[in-house]
Amino acid sequence: MIPQETDLANLYQIALAAAEAFEQWKSQPTLRALTLMAAADALDDAENELVSIAMQETGLTEMRLRGELKRTEVQLRLFADVVRRAQYLDLRIDAADPDFLLGARPDLRRTLVPVGPVVNFSSSNFPFAFSVAGGDTASALAAGCSVIVKAHPGHPVLSSRTAQIVSGALESSGAPPHVLQIIFGQRAGIEMLQHSLVRAGTFTGSIRAGRLLADIAAARPRPIPFYGELGSVNPQFVTRARTHNDAETVWSGYVASVSSSAGQFCTKPGFLFVPKGSIVEQSIRDAAMKIEEHRMLNTKIAQSYRDRRDFVLSQSGVKIIVEGSLRFDERGEGWVTPTFVSTSADALETCGAEMLDECFGPLSIVVEYDHEGQLAALARQLFPGNLTGGIHAAIEESSPALRALVDELSASSGRVVFNDWPTGVAVTSAQQHGGPWPSTTSDAGTSVGTAAIGRFLRGVAYQNMPQHLLPETLRDGNPWDVPRTCSPAGDSKHWGEAEVSELQYEPRQGPK
Amino acid sequence: MIPQETDLANLYQIALAAAEAFEQWKSQPTLRALTLMAAADALDDAENELVSIAMQETGLTEMRLRGELKRTEVQLRLFADVVRRAQYLDLRIDAADPDFLLGARPDLRRTLVPVGPVVNFSSSNFPFAFSVAGGDTASALAAGCSVIVKAHPGHPVLSSRTAQIVSGALESSGAPPHVLQIIFGQRAGIEMLQHSLVRAGTFTGSIRAGRLLADIAAARPRPIPFYGELGSVNPQFVTRARTHNDAETVWSGYVASVSSSAGQFCTKPGFLFVPKGSIVEQSIRDAAMKIEEHRMLNTKIAQSYRDRRDFVLSQSGVKIIVEGSLRFDERGEGWVTPTFVSTSADALETCGAEMLDECFGPLSIVVEYDHEGQLAALARQLFPGNLTGGIHAAIEESSPALRALVDELSASSGRVVFNDWPTGVAVTSAQQHGGPWPSTTSDAGTSVGTAAIGRFLRGVAYQNMPQHLLPETLRDGNPWDVPRTCSPAGDSKHWGEAEVSELQYEPRQGPK
Repeated sequence: MIPQETDLANLYQIALAAAEAFEQWKSQPTLRALTLMAAADALDDAENELVSIAMQETGLTEMRLRGELKRTEVQLRLFADVVRRAQYLDLRIDAADPDFLLGARPDLRRTLVPVGPVVNFSSSNFPFAFSVAGGDTASALAAGCSVIVKAHPGHPVLSSRTAQIVSGALESSGAPPHVLQIIFGQRAGIEMLQHSLVRAGTFTGSIRAGRLLADIAAARPRPIPFYGELGSVNPQFVTRARTHNDAETVWSGYVASVSSSAGQFCTKPGFLFVPKGSIVEQSIRDAAMKIEEHRMLNTKIAQSYRDRRDFVLSQSGVKIIVEGSLRFDERGEGWVTPTFVSTSADALETCGAEMLDECFGPLSIVVEYDHEGQLAALARQLFPGNLTGGIHAAIEESSPALRALVDELSASSGRVVFNDWPTGVAVTSAQQHGGPWPSTTSDAGTSVGTAAIGRFLRGVAYQNMPQHLLPETLRDGNPWDVPRTCSPAGDSKHWGEAEVSELQYEPRQGPK
Repeated sequence: MIPQETDLANLYQIALAAAEAFEQWKSQPTLRALTLMAAADALDDAENELVSIAMQETGLTEMRLRGELKRTEVQLRLFADVVRRAQYLDLRIDAADPDFLLGARPDLRRTLVPVGPVVNFSSSNFPFAFSVAGGDTASALAAGCSVIVKAHPGHPVLSSRTAQIVSGALESSGAPPHVLQIIFGQRAGIEMLQHSLVRAGTFTGSIRAGRLLADIAAARPRPIPFYGELGSVNPQFVTRARTHNDAETVWSGYVASVSSSAGQFCTKPGFLFVPKGSIVEQSIRDAAMKIEEHRMLNTKIAQSYRDRRDFVLSQSGVKIIVEGSLRFDERGEGWVTPTFVSTSADALETCGAEMLDECFGPLSIVVEYDHEGQLAALARQLFPGNLTGGIHAAIEESSPALRALVDELSASSGRVVFNDWPTGVAVTSAQQHGGPWPSTTSDAGTSVGTAAIGRFLRGVAYQNMPQHLLPETLRDGNPWDVPRTCSPAGDSKHWGEAEVSELQYEPRQGPK
């Protein structure tokens, strides 16, 4: 049964329950690690049921959904591990120092603490991994925050059932009641984001909706941080040398990355820059032929895709390589096969800005460029902010043009990928899934990888605090045996004293 | 000569110069460390000249200003040290892993990188330490950002001369031109904050002005992070046991902290909670008598102080302990001695919210409470966000009431101080100078201490990048010998596998 929209009259009670749960949850990291693992186990036990609901509600394939659920479970286990190791607390201890450079220094000890209840707006395109029990929820719970998920209307039954399973598993393994709650309805989501007890928000979705919510978060009487993961076109740049060496792998990898899950990934490569005259249209067609028709997530997304596709195909200077299909069935669901077009860098530079927008669905644009020396400037001019940018080159290439491109993509992307495709984001310690605007509202955060936990933390320092009143992690003797940065008495005398020749660093020449 | 307001027609050129300087500066950490030290040396050489200008423009004492300049120099040296050690880069390396839990994992390497040009709005009350060459500038420059300082109108000549000295020292020791620039005028500051090339903003000052600028930063076509350090009342709580043991030290320390620099510190204790019947008015009067008349920073601040003082003295339930003086001289400058009043917790709870606002100047309110069990609730109800909160107790005290108070102040403050006073903020690794709203616009940051550098950084991950295209800090063999978190192949198999009994943590009971 499809859940009803949350009664707005209940929001205060829900926020209050989240705030009460937070008070317990924030100071019990061991319990957090344990219960996150229990939640992962419960999802695993319910795999068949959940995948079956998800297939009906989203049109995504069974294989994809089983993989995504597995990823969601692993993500919970990873964050249990992060909590267990406590490295994310960035513990710092300054010893009291009577000889401090600026007079006596007190004993100072700093830790990060969770900010409070978080509201997570879940996504349409990842019904598990960026939804009720997804990365935003896992990282916020790990940090010690309670979570209110605003369900995506594209998979309401799945959202409701997932919340039931996960909150049940959390509570039956010892978590406080209401540490994870779910609400339905746009109005309920907005009012919850405005609620005075809520301390942070996350979102995965469109630039339009994400900006709307970011503005609401910033305009509150008490503004709160808001981490929106929005649109991205993820430009790819292929060097001449790469096209001389197994170019077939590039074409087939490109088509597969664009077409995967009907192109409904925020990391889908929207533009592929290749040297003039290097396009092998037949290779793209051959690879595209193998892609089966795929249902899109919902009617609205299919309609937006149709409009966007029509727009691109109608532009002057755009040449069709593969014109994929788009049909609507009797239930209004859209079914697609991928579309590939080509144009020139010159045409792209002179067209309107709309041509550079994201197309959510299986369409991508191959762009011919004249020479590699123009790539960094093209990237800078056309693509101010992306989740990821890609480089396809010969492994030993090292031209100034290539180095300038790496430098430019480092400035405008969260992740720079070499000879690989941006879809399929690894959930690990070194991941960064968040780039400059408009790919996110705040590139200081990431929504994938263990650094995601930092979005829900703030610093607290304790000055001259007796041992028994300190958090255990900050006490003498390091009773929890966690990493801490310690500054001994007398250290300030050496600040900045080193001559440049003694510095550990080598001078750097030019761009990285 | 007082500098003119910056011509708005020049702002684009200034922003462009900052963006160009950033391109050089961001990739040269060794140079940054060297030139920050040169800037500190140059300030030291100009001490007499700068202190003399500052005394004229701000009315602060010579001793205070010499100390503050020294602090500003030390701060630059500290950040040179931070750059040199490179711990702030949070380097992470995931080895490629064919046996990754979710299929093959690519080689992923993550670093933090500077965000771009920063505009810093300087403060009135710290003409050195939170002004042209202050903490925001030092931390942004250290991060690799170029800086545009919007000078405070309270000390324009000092700002201009400091900018000349520091940018001269930076450039003559090798920094790119325009890595530090200065602008004058409110309109120029606002337009610069809105400039598309600017990537972050900082501010120290009033809640009203800080919120205005935060809203402007959030409303830009491309929103940017904004770190405003605003008002704070820094409540202090004295237990009964503390009043039984050398209470004189509390009274004299309190009066000194309130009166220092005419109470014009964001960390001035605005409220001191003491047990009913424990106030020794004569001790407060004796200590206040020793405080010399002090000029306030400027006429506007003195007028605001007069209004605020009149408001407090006119409230019912407020009793005067010491009625300090306030006179305006022939130049319109205000001269003050400190004022202390008392009231009851009951009266404070029932008075309007305005009574809880910050008073910028040497006035503080002693509040009598009935029993310690009410302190945590009082703190929660009256003081939602402060830079710091203080506890004055017997060193061995450990009542549930005291522990609840520590927990509450940890939730509502950036720094919790025990048997010490909040003014005089140490510049160190473990410092946190930024608490929940309204004490800052974003409690995720700190404007004092080495963690301040994190406000100007964002993450970039490199996937499968060949060695020669990686930043040197991320290359195999760790050529810069900096701390890195490495995840070896196979590690994912152990994520979350530990039983709870094997976890490193001890379960925690109740509040910290």
